[in-house]
Amino acid sequence: MNDPVSFDPERFREEGRAVVDWIADYWASLASRPISPDVSPGDVRSQLPSRPPESPEPLADVLRDLDRVIVPGLLHWQHPAFFGYFPASASGPSILGELLSAGLGVQGMLWATSPACTELETHVLDWLRDLLGLPERFASSGAGGGVIQDSASSGVLVALVAARERATGLVTNREGLAQNNRPLVAYASADAHSSVEKAAGIIGIGRDWLRKIPADAAGRMDAAALATAMTADTDAGRRPFFVAATVGTTASGAIDPVAEIAAIAARHSAWLHVDAAWAGAAAICPEFRGPLVAGAESADSWGFNPHKWLLVNFDCHALWVADRATLASALSMKPDYLRNQATESGAVIDYCDWQVPLGRRFRALKLWMTLRMLGAEALRDHIRRHVAWAGEFAEQVAANPRFQLLVPPNLSLVCLALRAGDTATQALLDRVNATGHAFLTHARIGSRLAIRLAVGGATTTRDDVMATWRSIADLAN
Amino acid sequence: MNDPVSFDPERFREEGRAVVDWIADYWASLASRPISPDVSPGDVRSQLPSRPPESPEPLADVLRDLDRVIVPGLLHWQHPAFFGYFPASASGPSILGELLSAGLGVQGMLWATSPACTELETHVLDWLRDLLGLPERFASSGAGGGVIQDSASSGVLVALVAARERATGLVTNREGLAQNNRPLVAYASADAHSSVEKAAGIIGIGRDWLRKIPADAAGRMDAAALATAMTADTDAGRRPFFVAATVGTTASGAIDPVAEIAAIAARHSAWLHVDAAWAGAAAICPEFRGPLVAGAESADSWGFNPHKWLLVNFDCHALWVADRATLASALSMKPDYLRNQATESGAVIDYCDWQVPLGRRFRALKLWMTLRMLGAEALRDHIRRHVAWAGEFAEQVAANPRFQLLVPPNLSLVCLALRAGDTATQALLDRVNATGHAFLTHARIGSRLAIRLAVGGATTTRDDVMATWRSIADLAN
Repeated sequence: MNDPVSFDPERFREEGRAVVDWIADYWASLASRPISPDVSPGDVRSQLPSRPPESPEPLADVLRDLDRVIVPGLLHWQHPAFFGYFPASASGPSILGELLSAGLGVQGMLWATSPACTELETHVLDWLRDLLGLPERFASSGAGGGVIQDSASSGVLVALVAARERATGLVTNREGLAQNNRPLVAYASADAHSSVEKAAGIIGIGRDWLRKIPADAAGRMDAAALATAMTADTDAGRRPFFVAATVGTTASGAIDPVAEIAAIAARHSAWLHVDAAWAGAAAICPEFRGPLVAGAESADSWGFNPHKWLLVNFDCHALWVADRATLASALSMKPDYLRNQATESGAVIDYCDWQVPLGRRFRALKLWMTLRMLGAEALRDHIRRHVAWAGEFAEQVAANPRFQLLVPPNLSLVCLALRAGDTATQALLDRVNATGHAFLTHARIGSRLAIRLAVGGATTTRDDVMATWRSIADLAN
Repeated sequence: MNDPVSFDPERFREEGRAVVDWIADYWASLASRPISPDVSPGDVRSQLPSRPPESPEPLADVLRDLDRVIVPGLLHWQHPAFFGYFPASASGPSILGELLSAGLGVQGMLWATSPACTELETHVLDWLRDLLGLPERFASSGAGGGVIQDSASSGVLVALVAARERATGLVTNREGLAQNNRPLVAYASADAHSSVEKAAGIIGIGRDWLRKIPADAAGRMDAAALATAMTADTDAGRRPFFVAATVGTTASGAIDPVAEIAAIAARHSAWLHVDAAWAGAAAICPEFRGPLVAGAESADSWGFNPHKWLLVNFDCHALWVADRATLASALSMKPDYLRNQATESGAVIDYCDWQVPLGRRFRALKLWMTLRMLGAEALRDHIRRHVAWAGEFAEQVAANPRFQLLVPPNLSLVCLALRAGDTATQALLDRVNATGHAFLTHARIGSRLAIRLAVGGATTTRDDVMATWRSIADLAN
């Protein structure tokens, strides 16, 4: 066909192969690329034409510009020596699942708009609940169930809205908070992810009404301080309604004492949300599971990111709720044009009622394909290796008199610093990243600046971890 | 390599080709498939194993289950005779852009986390602003700029938060709405999309404080009624802070009188958001542009979905703001671990400050590839053809004595009914959909039930539209 708009299967076959080959070549080249881009603000844009073309351009031109303009401006998150932030690692099956989702182009907003899109999601999140050893209350066979959100930020946002509505008998959704003369108060540790505070602002309770409970030296929420704060708020006529416990903080990977926190939250009938965004994946290994899922049997919602450490490409946040009806009642909004018999029968899940957006793509495919094509045992090995390598790395740090571990390693996350102090540590981090052979980021542990090593890459090997240690140690001299 | 987890470029090449071929075959088969699935709740799940596999399964098994279990449970949104809701049409280049985004696996939360990801997005939204003929105030060269959100729902949510913060001097984010004794009031037409009301609930002002301004018989907001309502609220000590104007309502495609609405909103210093989710795409054609962008020069935010009618696969909502600093100040949340020199220089955009989630994938690629590989002229032809075919379809309806057009067609959207009444119309819609040869949905136009025909498919031809009319007319006998 000559019409460039109409989908031509033969053209797609040919161009699809070229793109698949481009990606394969990109991954094959990753280890030899500098991880960090060497660009200044505006450098990328200055190489792009100021207007889009009137006539079609061939794929080859686009791929050439990808190589010439775009790739040099990327931080290579899939590089084997990417140890920054938390890695967001992809696998071949997940990339192909994303491709299939785009190729099918169906909408999963209602069960009726593509039943398989909804049912596969519910099913695969039941699989995953089972793999992680999460309690039955989150299974769809009972009152709970799982859903895929784009990110942990969106997960905590919908949990906060559901908690707010439960605490106010669905009145806030209708009447708003301005009519509420008994302030709602939320709680999280001082080391909790920033998305909790951001969401508290968005939903209108206000960031100041998120109480940041102190953490101990290891980064764990002080449960006694939580109990005191909640009681003080109740005594003052305020309404504690939400507690976020963190399983694996961003700074140091610390794990809050969720079971203790759950007991305290329960005394105030507050919603307990567990943010296990990064660390949750490790619960697929029985030997790591205990502290990760402790207290989950009392949580109202529990979420983690398969897109961080479970090899599903971003975006894929898995969120489970114990009471799906409460979540749906807080977020449901069914105008006439979405009315349909399946919804009215009450026999189906309409996932648009579990999230902010109406539309949703078929993200369950990539989770399904990753679990099937890698298999549970290989995923466990993947996690185990990373934890072991981080442990070896930490031993090297501990044995070097210039360095110290600011906290014991948590799973595959190591926080180290130079004894010489923050300025020296920052300078060392900058020098390591300037080599282009590794990428790490920083964190604050108490008053100290730390270099963070987060092992989680899809292609990371023990050699990458050990070579990075040698580079750090050498550059410290 | 034997490790199923590690990315093997040669295996990816082979499996990638198989998936590309599967998608090409799927599209080639679409016209011959029944559009709607014939499944009952639970049918899909009942065919899936209750646990994920311990060992890796081959791609061939996954593709077999895709054919056997998943595809029969889909509503085929890319079928040439899909005329329901609003089509969410994909193109080959956009699907390949999604694939590249997944294959690169980079994060665009900060400029620093992949500069090209941010800069390409800003750049391509400047391109698109230009193509649509939107005012300069939305260009990134001034105080404004564009961003990709997942959906129009998320677009209106962030616009509402920015408006709320502007109206309250950023106090609400910190202190919450409970301290606010002067209620904030938002406005939209009674025919506005449900996402406006949903977002009003989420951000804590309450759904009841979204005033639904009556629409005229054609579905357009009554500007005089808006003026009266806003003045009454101001006189009563309330604070009108936000108006959503709709350019292309979901029910009938009606276009609110945005310029008039803008003048009224300005009298109250209220934020004006334009929701052009579906119709906005048609502004790329100069002959349709006038009413679509009228008043945009006074809007604070303006959004549309390239994933509806501009052939970029879901998700891709383009949102422009006139004052990017206000949006970012309402949503920014930078903990220590995201601190970096580029952010501190003030010379870059960090798109996590423009949205709810922290993480974000490289969605600009698919928009860039669609614009380049299809070219502006072919995209205009695509829109023009659909409008012309809808016009021909509407003429047939008007000429048939059993039928009536409930409103004149708007762009490519036609709302028709049987003169015999709603029961007959609903029965006809059910019969048409039961053929499996076309898929349409319903709407309420005033007190009447309408069958909606929304032309927008990537592979839809004039024959598909005309055959659907003949089927409707035949089945009405």
